[in-house]
Amino acid sequence: MKKFVYSFNEGSKDMKDLLGGKGANLAEMTKIGLPVPFGFTVTTEACNRYYDEGKKIGDDIVASIFEKLEELENTTGKKFGDVENPLLVSVRSGAKISMPGMMDTILNLGLNDQTVEGLAALTENPRFAYDSYRRFIQMFGDVVMEIAKTKFDAIFDAKKEEHGYEFDVDLTTEDLKEIIVGYKALVKEEMGRDFPQEPKDQLMEAIMAVFRSWNNDRAILYRQLNEIPDSIGTAVNVQSMVFGNMGETSGTGVAFTRSPVNGEKAIFGEFLVNAQGEDVVAGIRTPQPIAEMAQAFPEVYTEFTRIAELLEKHYTDMQDMEFTVERNKLFMLQTRNGKRTAPAAVKIAVDMQSEGLIDKETAVMRIEPAQIDQLLHPMFDAEELKEAEKLTKGLPASPGAATGQIYFNASDAETAVANGAKAILVRLETSPEDLAGMVAAEGILTARGGMTSHAAVVARGMGKCCVSGCAEIKVDEEAKELTIGEYVFKEGDYISLDGTAGDVLKGQIKTVPPELSGDFAEIMSWADEIRTLKIRTNADNPRDAKQAVEFGAEGIGLCRTEHMFFEEERIPAVRRMILADSEEERREALKFLLPYQKGDFKGIYEAMGDRPVTIRLLDPPLHEFLPHTDEEIKALSEQIGVPYEKLAKKTQELHEFNPMLGHRGCRLAVTYPEIAEMQAEAIIMAAIEVRKEQGLDIIPEIMIPLVGMRKELADVKATVVKTVEAVLEREGVKFDYLIGTMIEIPRAALTADEIAEEAEFFSFGTNDLTQMTFGFSRDDTGKIIKEYREKGIFDDDPFQSIDQVGVGKLVKMAVELGKQTRPSIKLGICGEHGGDPKSIEFCNAVGLQYVSCSPFRVPIARLAAAQAAIKQK
Amino acid sequence: MKKFVYSFNEGSKDMKDLLGGKGANLAEMTKIGLPVPFGFTVTTEACNRYYDEGKKIGDDIVASIFEKLEELENTTGKKFGDVENPLLVSVRSGAKISMPGMMDTILNLGLNDQTVEGLAALTENPRFAYDSYRRFIQMFGDVVMEIAKTKFDAIFDAKKEEHGYEFDVDLTTEDLKEIIVGYKALVKEEMGRDFPQEPKDQLMEAIMAVFRSWNNDRAILYRQLNEIPDSIGTAVNVQSMVFGNMGETSGTGVAFTRSPVNGEKAIFGEFLVNAQGEDVVAGIRTPQPIAEMAQAFPEVYTEFTRIAELLEKHYTDMQDMEFTVERNKLFMLQTRNGKRTAPAAVKIAVDMQSEGLIDKETAVMRIEPAQIDQLLHPMFDAEELKEAEKLTKGLPASPGAATGQIYFNASDAETAVANGAKAILVRLETSPEDLAGMVAAEGILTARGGMTSHAAVVARGMGKCCVSGCAEIKVDEEAKELTIGEYVFKEGDYISLDGTAGDVLKGQIKTVPPELSGDFAEIMSWADEIRTLKIRTNADNPRDAKQAVEFGAEGIGLCRTEHMFFEEERIPAVRRMILADSEEERREALKFLLPYQKGDFKGIYEAMGDRPVTIRLLDPPLHEFLPHTDEEIKALSEQIGVPYEKLAKKTQELHEFNPMLGHRGCRLAVTYPEIAEMQAEAIIMAAIEVRKEQGLDIIPEIMIPLVGMRKELADVKATVVKTVEAVLEREGVKFDYLIGTMIEIPRAALTADEIAEEAEFFSFGTNDLTQMTFGFSRDDTGKIIKEYREKGIFDDDPFQSIDQVGVGKLVKMAVELGKQTRPSIKLGICGEHGGDPKSIEFCNAVGLQYVSCSPFRVPIARLAAAQAAIKQK
Repeated sequence: MKKFVYSFNEGSKDMKDLLGGKGANLAEMTKIGLPVPFGFTVTTEACNRYYDEGKKIGDDIVASIFEKLEELENTTGKKFGDVENPLLVSVRSGAKISMPGMMDTILNLGLNDQTVEGLAALTENPRFAYDSYRRFIQMFGDVVMEIAKTKFDAIFDAKKEEHGYEFDVDLTTEDLKEIIVGYKALVKEEMGRDFPQEPKDQLMEAIMAVFRSWNNDRAILYRQLNEIPDSIGTAVNVQSMVFGNMGETSGTGVAFTRSPVNGEKAIFGEFLVNAQGEDVVAGIRTPQPIAEMAQAFPEVYTEFTRIAELLEKHYTDMQDMEFTVERNKLFMLQTRNGKRTAPAAVKIAVDMQSEGLIDKETAVMRIEPAQIDQLLHPMFDAEELKEAEKLTKGLPASPGAATGQIYFNASDAETAVANGAKAILVRLETSPEDLAGMVAAEGILTARGGMTSHAAVVARGMGKCCVSGCAEIKVDEEAKELTIGEYVFKEGDYISLDGTAGDVLKGQIKTVPPELSGDFAEIMSWADEIRTLKIRTNADNPRDAKQAVEFGAEGIGLCRTEHMFFEEERIPAVRRMILADSEEERREALKFLLPYQKGDFKGIYEAMGDRPVTIRLLDPPLHEFLPHTDEEIKALSEQIGVPYEKLAKKTQELHEFNPMLGHRGCRLAVTYPEIAEMQAEAIIMAAIEVRKEQGLDIIPEIMIPLVGMRKELADVKATVVKTVEAVLEREGVKFDYLIGTMIEIPRAALTADEIAEEAEFFSFGTNDLTQMTFGFSRDDTGKIIKEYREKGIFDDDPFQSIDQVGVGKLVKMAVELGKQTRPSIKLGICGEHGGDPKSIEFCNAVGLQYVSCSPFRVPIARLAAAQAAIKQK
Repeated sequence: MKKFVYSFNEGSKDMKDLLGGKGANLAEMTKIGLPVPFGFTVTTEACNRYYDEGKKIGDDIVASIFEKLEELENTTGKKFGDVENPLLVSVRSGAKISMPGMMDTILNLGLNDQTVEGLAALTENPRFAYDSYRRFIQMFGDVVMEIAKTKFDAIFDAKKEEHGYEFDVDLTTEDLKEIIVGYKALVKEEMGRDFPQEPKDQLMEAIMAVFRSWNNDRAILYRQLNEIPDSIGTAVNVQSMVFGNMGETSGTGVAFTRSPVNGEKAIFGEFLVNAQGEDVVAGIRTPQPIAEMAQAFPEVYTEFTRIAELLEKHYTDMQDMEFTVERNKLFMLQTRNGKRTAPAAVKIAVDMQSEGLIDKETAVMRIEPAQIDQLLHPMFDAEELKEAEKLTKGLPASPGAATGQIYFNASDAETAVANGAKAILVRLETSPEDLAGMVAAEGILTARGGMTSHAAVVARGMGKCCVSGCAEIKVDEEAKELTIGEYVFKEGDYISLDGTAGDVLKGQIKTVPPELSGDFAEIMSWADEIRTLKIRTNADNPRDAKQAVEFGAEGIGLCRTEHMFFEEERIPAVRRMILADSEEERREALKFLLPYQKGDFKGIYEAMGDRPVTIRLLDPPLHEFLPHTDEEIKALSEQIGVPYEKLAKKTQELHEFNPMLGHRGCRLAVTYPEIAEMQAEAIIMAAIEVRKEQGLDIIPEIMIPLVGMRKELADVKATVVKTVEAVLEREGVKFDYLIGTMIEIPRAALTADEIAEEAEFFSFGTNDLTQMTFGFSRDDTGKIIKEYREKGIFDDDPFQSIDQVGVGKLVKMAVELGKQTRPSIKLGICGEHGGDPKSIEFCNAVGLQYVSCSPFRVPIARLAAAQAAIKQK
């Protein structure tokens, strides 16, 4: 028969799935002989059965609970409901993954009208006993019976007022007894039944209440935010009570074996004399630093430091502990691996390795890759952030923290910054004309647009904080008003953005700059030793490229060429090209652009040195380069001297119902080969010149986007090869170059064996591949994805972490089919997923050779790639 | 060693791939002892080698040609270049698939300054000899040397003028000799070399010219239009000349063994006395009906009818023959299976079966499924069509022929029709408001929108002719002008539309109504016996449903519910629903719609009787139901009393960058379950009432669209099941119903094993599946697809015939994965491909159980399904 209840001496730390984190660690501490109040754990499987059986606990489980309860009575020598020596227990939830404060706890269970007197006699402290009973009824009423806390508070406060007391401690034993009468009457009134006097009934109700709390709104939301599956359930820990509030020889505290803030090796924490755990949390009294415990309880402190050291060695990780001192005796109530900031994580990992506690691989595994981001961008001051009001959440488009006054267009933002302000640019969505404003601003907030929108891509390139696609905000650019829920912000009002989390916050919050430690360099060098995946970057200008190299990028996996088309001196030529009536006219405009493009590529090659550079041919639909509103068209018409009618007509002609699926990517190059010719010439001429000038061995990789069919690639490839060969011959030089393609259309993945006949490399464009495989336009489905996550249809946002089941299947197919045709094919990924740790693990597993991500994610990718390599061993 | 040249006595009719159609049939006729002038065929493989080797003929092939030439000389007893008895040959192209008039022919090859005199002596007809030589130089100059025909004509006409001749026959031998001198001078001037006098040089040049003609513009275009692969190449037939122009005992003609127009069993055709084949084609003299040959050449005629009968029996198909009579001797120059109209095809197949010539399966295979369409819709009068000017081509959105005056909006069209006109509605694109105008019009022409655009879908439902997405036309709705190339048509001008081909034609063309023969019913009944695929229809109203049943539909595979939302009385409620601020308000509007929807479904159930009906829940994005231009919004605002600002804001909120990939399909039902609830209730209530009222055993099939994930389907399914069960319980009845899904998102196909856990049936929506698998928006890529077909990137338009390699791979995967999870799963297709014969063959092969297509394609699908079953045996 399956075992649903375990005594603390029956489990171990490896049983977290079954006992939850807290239960498993209590068992472990018991096993290694530490002073833990005895108890037992009802398993997570019991919780799942509770739900499966329609929120009922099976008779066999009830029987097991009572069996373990009897064992507990025997061990403690106390008895449930015994007036002389009553057994009191705490009932606490404990899932496999810690969800602090999300679920409910009940203390002092076992008290009733009789046992309270026994407790009073035993402790010789009636006030303590009745206060404990009062607290128990209140907690039970709240958690189990779901009676509003405020109703209990009203009775309590009325009693204080009646006597004119200022503090809770002013209440006498008699007062507390009267409050208990009031509480019990409230329960009767609310529930139509008496407060349960039978401790076993109290226990079973409490256990079920903990099970129920697994699905309270807070818990569900927490799981969603932290990507914890709903299916794992919670365990329940029933533990005999110890009291830290039994006078000056008692106390309670929490401590870490190393600093969770900076990683310093020393015991950090706080304790409170004569208090129960909840008092520490409630913050009514200010706790003392743990070091002062050495004075207050010297022997206990020595014992505690010994245990702390032992636990850290035992778990080989920094521990976060809870303890209680009852009449000079130390009891351990919890230990777990402590949460820590990114700097602390790095220092602890490096220190523990040099102390010989862990090896390099373990050290590398100890850093959460996503945390690394904190080290590279400005962060909010932790204290101020605690106080800040979170207004809403958008997409975490570009990490970092920003605070400033809001402006609704680029020029207002620029002017404000010129006058010394810090600006946050707030737009419905950004366009290339906003570029100067984006450069000036501290951060960017947009209502529309996904993780690959203009705002997101440009901001990430700059390493500038951006929250995009924030569906719940309303931006009125004309009225210069930003509405979020009830709040209306006007130009000049302060807001703050957390681009790492996607949060929008009210008011100003101090930011602190990043500082990279030697420990960081150390751990990254270990990561580099371990990983087999190469890390490239997505960069389309020398500045980003240099930044990425500093962060450890080993090449460029995606150099987009379209941003270069938007620059002020060039855009008129780009527009002339688009508006051309003949191929000749188009070639004329392209001729003008050629030296600019060549210059772009030279700058990038120089920044990258000998590292490989993949350059993608023009990708977006041409209408993106034209104005859209009537006014803009009129303005442009005057500016470039093309009749309004012609411009308007062309704009209308180029209009597409679904531009994502329209005339873009290699389709442009099929229709207008002369554009691809110009780009190919610029790519090769730049390589020729940099090879000559710098002696660098540049092997350009030319990438043809949006390919769906072999013949389509063959067509564009023929254009490119013809141009390249002609240039090489003209210039009298010879060197290698590669021609490959994006795999971003489902059909390309499905027919990758055919495509590989033409392609020397595949670069998975998993942004578009995800859009088309799901039929989800990222720019349009922000709200839907949110709703899907709330409903549990999506566990993860598939645009943040690759959908391994669907999109991943296509990637796997393409890898296998591609290798089948061309065993030497180069395989990489250049979609946003290239910077996501989970996706990197997937890329490693399916056999890609590199991932490419934005410069600021390069260190994350290096670490994640190392972790993937370790896990895959 | 590979054989590149075959004498006529070495081949057979089964060698068409190698010898081309003409060559294989010449060989076959030779084999069965018919009088065929001897010759040889240079193979299609030689043609492909010619291209592979850079437009050169390999030495080995040249040697083989000369070897066969020698054999020809031996057989005929004539010699190339022999002045006494010169061998003259024709050189003709002949691909595997006939491409009439598309490639070039050279007659009288072998003539030079010497042999012409020999021919004169031999025929005792110097004028004939010199005229032949003159024609040969002209043809050779045109075809081989590419000298403009007009230059030859100028010399010829000058000579006629010089002597004041009216007719060509007035030219004397001397005149012809002088013309020849002029021609040769022209050649020398144009080519810088003399006209080749060596017959072997003439021959090799002519053969290469035929190879080259495979890739002339006409031939390429023809292949594109007729979906003939470029790779098959053409053969070249070299045949000793016979002359039908040797006086009154000679002649030439073409004939069919049965009428190609109506299938009547009798020899049909024409002949000309004293003429060469080209004279018949040139139409200078009017040929006589073939029957009159009985008088002119009684013996030859008897011989010819014997041969015709023999050939028909030999080929067991109606033959299209060419022959020449040289001095009372009959020579067969060609035979092939004759092209025929749809009515002729049906009659010939049925007649031949009853004559015992062929079996039922062969008869069924003899009908081109696409031809069937001609039988169901009005057609153009064949004679008038010949004269008509084709202006441009759009998408063949809905078959049939229409002629009428053009109107640019629905109300103008309605008014004109009310006044007795026949109208063609011309729009940029249609919207639901155009419905009345579409009903009134004879046909619809749109500049934008694909095969699944509003215009196309609605027109097909009505069986009304429609050409959509006609990218080359310019429609100015305000100015009421239609521009096509050079032509500008104004309101009231006549145009004609061929919806079967997608052609737009100038002026009025008489149309003739369809008439279904008993033969047609016969052949369709044979098809039904043979096929295993079921044929359903796409219909969303009782009228279409009834029509489809008449055409043999066995159920509805796709009943769209969105069109019902557009009807005049309902659209206000639909808009109220969309504009609702609360779920309550939305439910209120839905309550109003419920009885209408129920009525719709009752009508459809009644029309379909016991046949299964699959109803799809609401699919399009909600903004499709709202107006978009400022003016329309203002008008609606006044009409329904919702403030303009609110309406405008909502419209803007609902705006999507890529609606195809936006908030539609099951995503609507996830967000607004109340819509799905209303539809589910209507579906079930209608079934309950029709079961009661009519005693029909209706088992509704509820289809959830655009599913990509199992959980998404599970969510909507839960909503539907809850509603249905509640209704059944409320009404106290019980019957089966099915819940299934469209497979139209690539991810659904990739994860079909998971989806099948929830779905009782899959219906492949290959329109959207193709769009997303290719990343091609059908509404936007008409021009691109055209260009891709011209460049040979696409062999077929993947929206017309399923892309078996890519999209088909997904379909196959989904079928296999679906069956793996649920062996009993029902599998069908409801995309446009369901009516395309090639795609039907694919569906049959991958194991679908039914295809569903628009009513007018049901007979085509029945026939195609039978042919698929036969082929798959």
